[in-house]
Amino acid sequence: LPAEFDLIARYFAPLAAGRPEALGLVDDVALLDIDPADSLVVTADALIAGVHFLAEDPPALVARKMLRVNLSDLAGKGARPLGYLMTCALSDDVDEAWLAEFTTGLAADQREFGLTLLGGDTTGTPGPLALSLTALGRVRRGRALLRSAARAGDVVMVSGTLGDGALGLDVQRREIAGLPAVARDFLIDRYRLPQPRLALGQALAVGGVARAGMDISDGLLADLGHICDTSSVGAVLRWSDLPLSPAARTVLSAAPELSERIVAGGDDYELLVTVPAERVDAALAAASALGLPLAAIGRIEARAGVRLLDPLGAEMRVAHTGYQHF
Amino acid sequence: LPAEFDLIARYFAPLAAGRPEALGLVDDVALLDIDPADSLVVTADALIAGVHFLAEDPPALVARKMLRVNLSDLAGKGARPLGYLMTCALSDDVDEAWLAEFTTGLAADQREFGLTLLGGDTTGTPGPLALSLTALGRVRRGRALLRSAARAGDVVMVSGTLGDGALGLDVQRREIAGLPAVARDFLIDRYRLPQPRLALGQALAVGGVARAGMDISDGLLADLGHICDTSSVGAVLRWSDLPLSPAARTVLSAAPELSERIVAGGDDYELLVTVPAERVDAALAAASALGLPLAAIGRIEARAGVRLLDPLGAEMRVAHTGYQHF
Repeated sequence: LPAEFDLIARYFAPLAAGRPEALGLVDDVALLDIDPADSLVVTADALIAGVHFLAEDPPALVARKMLRVNLSDLAGKGARPLGYLMTCALSDDVDEAWLAEFTTGLAADQREFGLTLLGGDTTGTPGPLALSLTALGRVRRGRALLRSAARAGDVVMVSGTLGDGALGLDVQRREIAGLPAVARDFLIDRYRLPQPRLALGQALAVGGVARAGMDISDGLLADLGHICDTSSVGAVLRWSDLPLSPAARTVLSAAPELSERIVAGGDDYELLVTVPAERVDAALAAASALGLPLAAIGRIEARAGVRLLDPLGAEMRVAHTGYQHF
Repeated sequence: LPAEFDLIARYFAPLAAGRPEALGLVDDVALLDIDPADSLVVTADALIAGVHFLAEDPPALVARKMLRVNLSDLAGKGARPLGYLMTCALSDDVDEAWLAEFTTGLAADQREFGLTLLGGDTTGTPGPLALSLTALGRVRRGRALLRSAARAGDVVMVSGTLGDGALGLDVQRREIAGLPAVARDFLIDRYRLPQPRLALGQALAVGGVARAGMDISDGLLADLGHICDTSSVGAVLRWSDLPLSPAARTVLSAAPELSERIVAGGDDYELLVTVPAERVDAALAAASALGLPLAAIGRIEARAGVRLLDPLGAEMRVAHTGYQHF
């Protein structure tokens, strides 16, 4: 099969033609203007055991990561969550103990993020456990952070720190050894339990502070590439401006060859936004009010492509630019 | 694992507690009052190759049945469709030819039913093809046909004819032989390509003609049992009032032991509604205007349980009352 984005363009995008709400299937969500004031934001994701998580992963963590990944999609649009529907195709190895832990995990995150289950479907499957989640949210009309809204001159900003999730997966796979326990635990936690930046997304969207936006799931370069392609612009980033956690710095000082994981590893679930230069101070103030780091890492420019510059200003070559879905 | 309804009650319904929109997870849908005039209706279903369809089924038919089954859920609530999201976990045997036919089937039914794809997700799976569809619709506030709205004295009505889908599956499995070609083709078509009764559902809901309602997917007795349980009522039906197609009559005259398939086979995708006695004429007029049969088959009563009476008024015993999801 062709790569995911080609498949979507060739077979699925024509099914959404003529409906601006579907955003041409090039965004993470659909936007339905149902209310005079607000748009409904809808996003769906599939999770398969053995692909997106391991069958032996703790069920509560599988549940919470599934919910958070979808909440992160809503955060990337500046939406607040309303609820979710879930379909579960249960494999033979799922027993009541698994289900009890799985739903306990959902209940914990429902409380944390203020949403509930709205419906769904439960069935059996002879194959691996297959979950699908549709999350619903709302955002003030015209304020959603779209992939297509970036303009040359915008400042590129990211929340939190980059690459922790990808390095956490490496640590969990024992591909990185010799780390202090505190760094190891931090990175694994960042992989296992994303923190959807809902409050920051809403603050950047509702005030009209940010223009384009999304959450980073495939990796910074791939996802900024999506924004640039959809907006018909390009971007230039500086490596030295990328925000790294102390744990990630510890890893890179011992294994600089892992630098690519920072920009291409994926699983960040941080916000990536483009902000008009005159709103950068407002963006920083919004993040500061929430106690969240927000870093300016580059600029949107008219020239196509995403370039990453080293401290001397030379373009860095990146072998793999992001997570491939196939 | 316990039966599906026990699983839902034990593990999933608590996750929807305190949200009237989720209807306690005992209906097919969630209802969100997003608009001052209308409610958003949301329903989700999972379809797994080897469980809900066969991997070798024509891809266009798989696509159309998946869409129609969900549209039938909307029809059962009296909603009109807005669009759908779909997640596809593609198995190794799915190639571009399969996808081309699958999406061609979706395109055909999108035109027929006036809706489009709004979003979704595509990924790979080492297991069988796993599809999940979330359909969105809208209905005037307070007019949705809920499972919980039946009252003693209501007349039980069904659209179309009963049992054709279940007998069509039997024919396709070669468990019924010797039928005339026209009857065989009719029954197989009824199994393969449900006709969601969207216009009738809307007519019965918007005018306030029907009270409770749903589409029949598990079989008449099971689904009427859902309405009765949720409404805290019972029902009594007469076998001789059940609407049968000429093809089903042909089957039963040769094999009367298949009678149970009529009331317990499932895959009908007809409307099942309860109508106050004084609105029965209005219901019949609405169906007649659409050229669709609508039959009165019994009454809602205060006494719990669903009873099916033979032509002499004796209670008929039914061994299996409906499709089991596990």
